[in-house]
Amino acid sequence: MDDIDLAEPHLLSWLATVGLDAHYVRAEGDHLYRLDDEGREIPVVDFAGGYGSLMLGHNHPDILACAREMLDHQAPVHAQFSRHPYAKRLAAELNAIVRRETESDEMYSVIFANSGAEAVEVAVKHAELDRVMKVAELRQEIAANIDAARAAVAAGEVSVSGEAAIAAGLDTTDFASLAARISEVNEARATTPPLLFALEGGFHGKLMGSVQLTHNAAYRNPFAALGTSVRFVAPVDISALPKIFDEERVDLLDLAVTGSEITVVCRPLPLFCAFVLEPVQGEGGIRALDARSAEQIQAACARVDCPVVVDEVQSGMGRTGTFLASSAVGLRGDYYALSKSLGGGLAKTAVMLARSSRYRPEFELVHSSTFAKDIFSTTIALKVLELLEADGGVAYARAAERGAYILDMLRSVQRDFPDVVADVRGRGLMLGLEFHDQSASAIPAVRRHAEGGTFGYAVAGTLLERHRVRTFPTASAPNTLRFEPSIHIGDAEVAQLEAGLRDVCAGLRAQDAAALVDHTPDQEGNQAT
Amino acid sequence: MDDIDLAEPHLLSWLATVGLDAHYVRAEGDHLYRLDDEGREIPVVDFAGGYGSLMLGHNHPDILACAREMLDHQAPVHAQFSRHPYAKRLAAELNAIVRRETESDEMYSVIFANSGAEAVEVAVKHAELDRVMKVAELRQEIAANIDAARAAVAAGEVSVSGEAAIAAGLDTTDFASLAARISEVNEARATTPPLLFALEGGFHGKLMGSVQLTHNAAYRNPFAALGTSVRFVAPVDISALPKIFDEERVDLLDLAVTGSEITVVCRPLPLFCAFVLEPVQGEGGIRALDARSAEQIQAACARVDCPVVVDEVQSGMGRTGTFLASSAVGLRGDYYALSKSLGGGLAKTAVMLARSSRYRPEFELVHSSTFAKDIFSTTIALKVLELLEADGGVAYARAAERGAYILDMLRSVQRDFPDVVADVRGRGLMLGLEFHDQSASAIPAVRRHAEGGTFGYAVAGTLLERHRVRTFPTASAPNTLRFEPSIHIGDAEVAQLEAGLRDVCAGLRAQDAAALVDHTPDQEGNQAT
Repeated sequence: MDDIDLAEPHLLSWLATVGLDAHYVRAEGDHLYRLDDEGREIPVVDFAGGYGSLMLGHNHPDILACAREMLDHQAPVHAQFSRHPYAKRLAAELNAIVRRETESDEMYSVIFANSGAEAVEVAVKHAELDRVMKVAELRQEIAANIDAARAAVAAGEVSVSGEAAIAAGLDTTDFASLAARISEVNEARATTPPLLFALEGGFHGKLMGSVQLTHNAAYRNPFAALGTSVRFVAPVDISALPKIFDEERVDLLDLAVTGSEITVVCRPLPLFCAFVLEPVQGEGGIRALDARSAEQIQAACARVDCPVVVDEVQSGMGRTGTFLASSAVGLRGDYYALSKSLGGGLAKTAVMLARSSRYRPEFELVHSSTFAKDIFSTTIALKVLELLEADGGVAYARAAERGAYILDMLRSVQRDFPDVVADVRGRGLMLGLEFHDQSASAIPAVRRHAEGGTFGYAVAGTLLERHRVRTFPTASAPNTLRFEPSIHIGDAEVAQLEAGLRDVCAGLRAQDAAALVDHTPDQEGNQAT
Repeated sequence: MDDIDLAEPHLLSWLATVGLDAHYVRAEGDHLYRLDDEGREIPVVDFAGGYGSLMLGHNHPDILACAREMLDHQAPVHAQFSRHPYAKRLAAELNAIVRRETESDEMYSVIFANSGAEAVEVAVKHAELDRVMKVAELRQEIAANIDAARAAVAAGEVSVSGEAAIAAGLDTTDFASLAARISEVNEARATTPPLLFALEGGFHGKLMGSVQLTHNAAYRNPFAALGTSVRFVAPVDISALPKIFDEERVDLLDLAVTGSEITVVCRPLPLFCAFVLEPVQGEGGIRALDARSAEQIQAACARVDCPVVVDEVQSGMGRTGTFLASSAVGLRGDYYALSKSLGGGLAKTAVMLARSSRYRPEFELVHSSTFAKDIFSTTIALKVLELLEADGGVAYARAAERGAYILDMLRSVQRDFPDVVADVRGRGLMLGLEFHDQSASAIPAVRRHAEGGTFGYAVAGTLLERHRVRTFPTASAPNTLRFEPSIHIGDAEVAQLEAGLRDVCAGLRAQDAAALVDHTPDQEGNQAT
């Protein structure tokens, strides 16, 4: 009975059909190791890189040493609600890097989390707390203005203007009626649900809240009733954001004393909770936001005081050649979410950075996490930053150089197989190769995978089995393979990937029945290969 | 500039006002160590225990050895979408333990997460997927029944009964009208939002979704617009659950052919997503669900097919004397969430167990997490289970014995200070001591803390400063101190806690101005002590 697999056996069976059910026993640098039948290690080059978690590769010796030192010194991992100097240091280091890159003096407050999805949710939670407090502040201000107007009326100094009555939809200039009407209108409008925006193709996690921000309908739709609804903006609509935002405007009514008259003033209700986006969409197919779109989003959001949450969970930590992928396109986040490589390939950690001018200290008293802000993961994160920043930031330069080298290779494959490869794209070590749709292929297995949305996985399985190269399609654009190796990836490993890609492309072009490995059981239940 | 604290400085300032801003440099067993002015280690006995994460104490040597071995062998931490035999083993071990304890043969499928809050959300996500699929299945079944009825009418075999017309609110027995009407009714009703229930006082996390399940209004209210609304059930209403559930009933309309007539049949819409509860409320003040309430919830939920999600994040892993606190009161979960001590005081890990009869394999393809199911945390979790299960489960017996020993001590304190101590309660090593409300105290500082809801923190600060004992109030019931040490807690440490509690109680009884340490700055900004 104990041999029954109760840990996602369905997923494993499915991986087996595309040859991805490997068992890795060791990992080092850009290699994972599996065993052959004689128990000898077979190296596999890892271009999947933990979906972006391995900027420094698997089991970097300095990260391991840092972890060992903490184990040896019995570091106080569970010390909640005490002083955390390591967390303070990490916040300071992150700020120094972000300040340098965004060329700004403004600081970011840091809240800690355990996964990228958690960090995104913490950012949205903070943005919503800020919004709710702004609504309360506005209402207090309006109440004070109404009181002041009431006092002025009582003193016989002012009277309600006819325009004010019309603006409030009244046919009387009686102050008490006006105040009651405004109160009623504001009461109804103040509870207008907040607006959350995200980009089409975006991926921000799969928890109850973050999954609502993730565009992929298969991941999101079944759980729609568990969270708030998010509006997804298509790339073509980015230029129309000011109009889209304007259509949502809701005003509270306020009173002002102008000379001897009381007039009604419209005050925009803080309605925009957040605009969440990735500077380079990872799961969406390695799609980079261009500087023009970034500028349009930034400007439109600033106009309506909508904070921009920049999800750098996959793109950040230097992967694209700068610490933040967003800084390369001039995008400035009100919030940043970082995770994956922040944990150095070992720890589970994440941070949310909130711009000081928006920061609400009250958040520290209403949000917490038992596992977050611990010495183990924050100390490893500090070591990661030290390694990235060493020698004047050579790691960032290396990400750019290695990325350009791989991109050149991918372009050469595309040049030679334009009938198979639709596009190659990306920045630094966040690269994608998109295949043309294969649903009209003459090869039945290829056609079946293309129609079922698993074509990219079948290619990945083929690269793994025949070329010892690990990669995956991006989750929401499964015709696009992703390449996110570490900064230490060598020329030989890139050549290994190139050979694999050319082999697959040649097979697809030749409509070779063996172009892709296929372990799908046939109708008799036998394995196809 | 880099000396500015950007990692929750507000929280730290607040901790300082109650003397809780300690800096711990080492942790071992049931002790955390801080340094005195000469740099010598001062041991602090830890009764907070990482809010339940330290069943085995800080830095248990076997856990450290297990971690070191993985570092030495370059364990493949990032190996997503491959074979995870360690996860399979962990799922099997968890099942063996749960099977033994619930005396059942039914198995639980396991999904992995990184924190307790994540595990709760994964359970709710799965429950909602199951519900949504049941709704779809019911609608398909109804559609087939309507098709069959239509065919029977067309064949002249049956006709629509008058009762059917009345049931559908029609004044015609025309089949097409009836079918159209049913379709319209069902379309509208099928999208009725799902119902989530939780107990008053419950705590289930602080992420966007899980915070909606957490009863504490200060944690939940600001974020209400970010998630689905949850109905909280008061303890006194548990016996009325069948009635509460019945009031929510929504039926879809179906058709049946009975003899020569077509009749309308009501089919209950799967509307109940989940009932989420802790068998012993941790943050709610250490309040255990009794067997009678458990039975009533179980029966009421079974009647309407509402899955019970048992949150064992704090109470589980043997803390209360059984692996699952729920099994001691005969409560059987459709889902279980486990975390905290599952990580052995070092790793961040969590699991969600879903009863096989409810399990949807499809979930494995729509849910995932980059950091979850990794070899590092699952191997540590396996080691934790091994340590708990060793020698016939002596760890569970020890939790019960140490718990009873501490409870006896707490009772003796209550007996001697009934004017100060309102209640002591709990099971195993999940214990609480509730103080009487002190808002009428003659000591200004005590009164101020009591009115501000920080009385328990001031007591905790006093115990830390004067008695080197670490404990915290429960987050949502701050007059209750929690005691959740490891199974290795010694008699001397319990005596140390007792001395501290007696000292505080005596000071409060004597209305001694120095009963509690108080570092709140006075109006001139000087420290009070």
